[in-house]
This record gives sequence, C-alpha cells and structure tokens, in this order.
Amino acid sequence: MRTLRTVPELRTAVRAARRQAPHAVIGLVPTMGALHDGHLQLIRQARLECELVVVSLFVNPTQFDAAADLAAYPRDEQADAGVASEAGADFLFAPRAETVYPDGFSTSVQLSGPLVESLEGAHRGPGHFSGVTTVVTKLFNMVQPDVAYFGQKDAQQVLVIRKLVADLDLPVRIEAVPTVREPDGLARSSRNVHLSGTDRTKALALRAGLAAAEHAFAAGERDATTVQAAAVAAMTDLGVTPEYLALVDPQTLAPVTEIADGTLVAVAAPVGTTRLIDNTILGSNPNGRR
Amino acid sequence: MRTLRTVPELRTAVRAARRQAPHAVIGLVPTMGALHDGHLQLIRQARLECELVVVSLFVNPTQFDAAADLAAYPRDEQADAGVASEAGADFLFAPRAETVYPDGFSTSVQLSGPLVESLEGAHRGPGHFSGVTTVVTKLFNMVQPDVAYFGQKDAQQVLVIRKLVADLDLPVRIEAVPTVREPDGLARSSRNVHLSGTDRTKALALRAGLAAAEHAFAAGERDATTVQAAAVAAMTDLGVTPEYLALVDPQTLAPVTEIADGTLVAVAAPVGTTRLIDNTILGSNPNGRR
Repeated sequence: MRTLRTVPELRTAVRAARRQAPHAVIGLVPTMGALHDGHLQLIRQARLECELVVVSLFVNPTQFDAAADLAAYPRDEQADAGVASEAGADFLFAPRAETVYPDGFSTSVQLSGPLVESLEGAHRGPGHFSGVTTVVTKLFNMVQPDVAYFGQKDAQQVLVIRKLVADLDLPVRIEAVPTVREPDGLARSSRNVHLSGTDRTKALALRAGLAAAEHAFAAGERDATTVQAAAVAAMTDLGVTPEYLALVDPQTLAPVTEIADGTLVAVAAPVGTTRLIDNTILGSNPNGRR
Repeated sequence: MRTLRTVPELRTAVRAARRQAPHAVIGLVPTMGALHDGHLQLIRQARLECELVVVSLFVNPTQFDAAADLAAYPRDEQADAGVASEAGADFLFAPRAETVYPDGFSTSVQLSGPLVESLEGAHRGPGHFSGVTTVVTKLFNMVQPDVAYFGQKDAQQVLVIRKLVADLDLPVRIEAVPTVREPDGLARSSRNVHLSGTDRTKALALRAGLAAAEHAFAAGERDATTVQAAAVAAMTDLGVTPEYLALVDPQTLAPVTEIADGTLVAVAAPVGTTRLIDNTILGSNPNGRR
C-alpha cells in the first residue's frame, strides 16, 4: 500500500492504474481515520468489488460543530495505515489540511431541506452536513472513483450523499455497508475509545432503545408515539436520555405517525462526554441484514 | 453531430468515444444557445485542441435574477445546432430543464467573497453566480471533459469558474477565449439581438469607455479615479450611463487606486432595455491578444 499526500501524486497513481487496466473499477472508502471494524468492513467490501481500492484519511475540520470535538477526535495514522493495508487498500490518501483547504478556499456545496436540517442537522448545526457534502465532493473529484463506500451507521449521511450525487450528477455509485457491532451490540465508532468503564456499559442504551422499537414493531404495535415512548423508556432505564429518538421515512427522513416495514429509527445520545448515534430499519431487513 | 437529451445518453456516447481512443482529449463548450461568433470561436478552438468536442446548450434558469430577462433570452435550437455542427462539434448536449433540475433538486455550489460579490455579483444579485457555479459543476460532472472553454467577455465568470475548479478539485482545465467583436467594436453577445437601431449605436458606448481607459493608460495616466472618470465621460457622451465601470485587480477583482499593466477594466451598462457587459485588460496584452 502506498501513502499519498497530494492531489497530483494521487491522480498520477490512479491514472497509471487506469491506463494499465482501462476497465478496472476504482473504489473509494472515505474515512476520518481511527479505523475500526466498521471501516474494515467497508475496505473489505471495496476489495471484493474493485480492482483498485483507495482509502482516504482526513479528519475534516469543517464538519465538526465544536472545536473541542475536533481536537478530541482520535488520530493515529500509523495504526490506520497498518489496518488499511491489511484490509486490502492499494492507496492511502492522507492529505494535509492545507492541501484540502488552502488559503483563500471559499467554496461550499450545500443541500437544503429536511435531509440536512433534521436529526443530525438539527442537533449538530447547519454547518455539519455542508462540511460533509463539500469534502465528499472534493474527495470524489480528487480520486474520481467509480464507487464509494459509506457505513450505514451514519444513515442520514448516506441519504445526504446519495442526494448530493444525484443532484450534482457526480459519476460515482454509492454503496452503504451494514453497521458492524461489538458482541454486546454497541455500534462500532471511532468515538467509542472515549468511553470509560461505566460509560461503556451505559452506551448499550442506544442499541437497547432500538431493540425496544424492533420488539414493539414485531409484536404488532404500529403507533409511532407508542413505539417511540417504549424506546426512550428502554434508554432512560439504563441512565441515558436521547438527544433524539426519531421514527422516520427511510428516504425523506419525514417523521411517521404509523410505523411500517422499512421505517428508520435513528437515535443520538450523550454518554458521559461522548455523543453517540445509531439506527435500525424496522421489519424484515433490519440494518441491511437478511 | 448528434444531439443528446439525457445524462445516460450523453455518458454512453462520451464513454464509447473514450474507449475507442483512451488518450483522446474531450472538450466542453458550455453555452446558453443563441450562438454567435463568440461561441463559434470557442467551438473552433475546442476543435483544434480536442479529439471530441461537446457543446452544451442549456438556458440555465437559476442564473437569471429576473424572470423577464430569462423569458426574453433568445432561443433557437435548430439554428444553434446548425452553427455548432458547422463549427465542428461532435455532440450537442441539449437537456430539458427537468433533466438538469428534477423535482426535489436541492443542492447548490456556492463561492463566497469578492469574486462573486463584486461587479456582476453586486448588480445581478447573489443568486447569479451560485446559479452559474452549480450548473457548471453539474455540466462538468455530466460530460467529464478534460478541458472547458469560456469567453473572456465574461471575465468575472472566468475567474469564478477557475476558483470553483481549484476549490472543488474539479479535474477540468479552463481555457478563456478572447472576446470576439463586431467590426465596429461591439462585443458579441446573445443579447445584441435585442438592440434596435438607435440602441445598437449607443451600445458602442461600452467599448468607447474601455477605449478611453486604454488611451489614458497608454498616455501615461496611472491614477484610477482619473482614468475611471475619463472612461465614464466617454460613455455618457454617447448617452449611456454605466451601472459600473471598475478598475480592478485581474485576479482578485479588488479595486485598484493605481492602474498598471494587467489591470482589468470591467463595465456594465443598460442600453435601452438591454443590459450589456464588456471588459479590457490594460497594457501590452489587451483582451488576450498579443
């Protein structure tokens, strides 16, 4: 695996690969580093489906709403390079901040509407998703992949990026990869390293809330308010109060009053000083599994 | 020349061409139709430099500040197709409005700062350049050209698009083509068809203003205020009051107090009910000529 720092280096490497194999499929796995089993799953799927796998590693400052959150975000490029290489990446693209945002940078790519204004958009501020859509547009243009892989754990982000790709006609196919969990159900997240002993236990509340919604649905309950109350109760029983726990349409994120097969249940909650998110899709195909 | 209406059609055609000639250079000439000699020059230059020439024809509603201006914009696709074909275009991409902006479209690409806020940005409103940058990003993603051609008559637009390309890492080279003029000096513009007899004569005021600035500079005058006053006087003598006549840095568009080789003089003025723009670069290399 080669580590590349600049866009010309990256383009030269990708173009050389394209010249060698004109029909090669190029896959991109965009990451902010602190790679865990969820990222590994993305890279492995890319490796299965693509001739060339590029993993990008860039902690994008513009998608953080709070400076403290950005500063605390775990960084260990050497460890990440080892993990990416092992999982089958061909190139690690790890640009410096000034490569991505040089002096005088002044362009942004913005969506409007419920997809970016609800849930994470409402709670992390309007800058979060414009930070995401701008950097993803840039990464797509830098790498020019045929397909890009994102984790279903960030369900709203997947929807936002699919909409971005459709609206700007970006020539990239988006693949959402099911959430990878710890054996006890906690969704893998780079932020999990911040969870101390008690908080690690309390963090299970998110999955417990989602499970309560799944059970209520399986038991035949269809009223969103009732299901939501049951899910929130399951969380507060474990000492965690959700920032939001929402039952929404899985495409538009519009709140539903009656849940159905495919309803997205999305949750965010602070656990100690760490903010976590998780989600599930109700019905026959929870979370992408069959 | 083939006329294409949809993005899949376009991509299939462009990809087939790329497969046949993997090293072919693909050129895009984005237009809003009403093709005149200025566009012809863009297409001819693309034909000289590229193996495949795509001309796009789309009257982009989002870059018009006034509905009346949009409605009045001249449209004649059949004539345009003849002109584009004659000038050497391989493909005419003429999408319908709902292809470019389908229901629910909600993404915009926006620059901030003096490049989009001064001159045309100040006078046509903030939506003008975001309309331009959004549609140009889309067209680049639809066609995936190696190089795109724009007229220097829209000097600010060229700067905005160069900045867009740099900031979003769009893999497209931008070529600015010198302004083509009528024998009497009037810059070619699709809007010239609206000029009636008297207005056609008054329209020469823009070039007269620029010429006055050029003459003052050639005579050794360096004070921007003095040169600006001379240029405006030359225009008002012909019965036209400029919306703006600005002496600015040719890269940043910041106003200059002392003019120099390379200073951009940009002018906009209403002539009758038609708004016209023009510009010149002071010094040894006016308007791209040597």
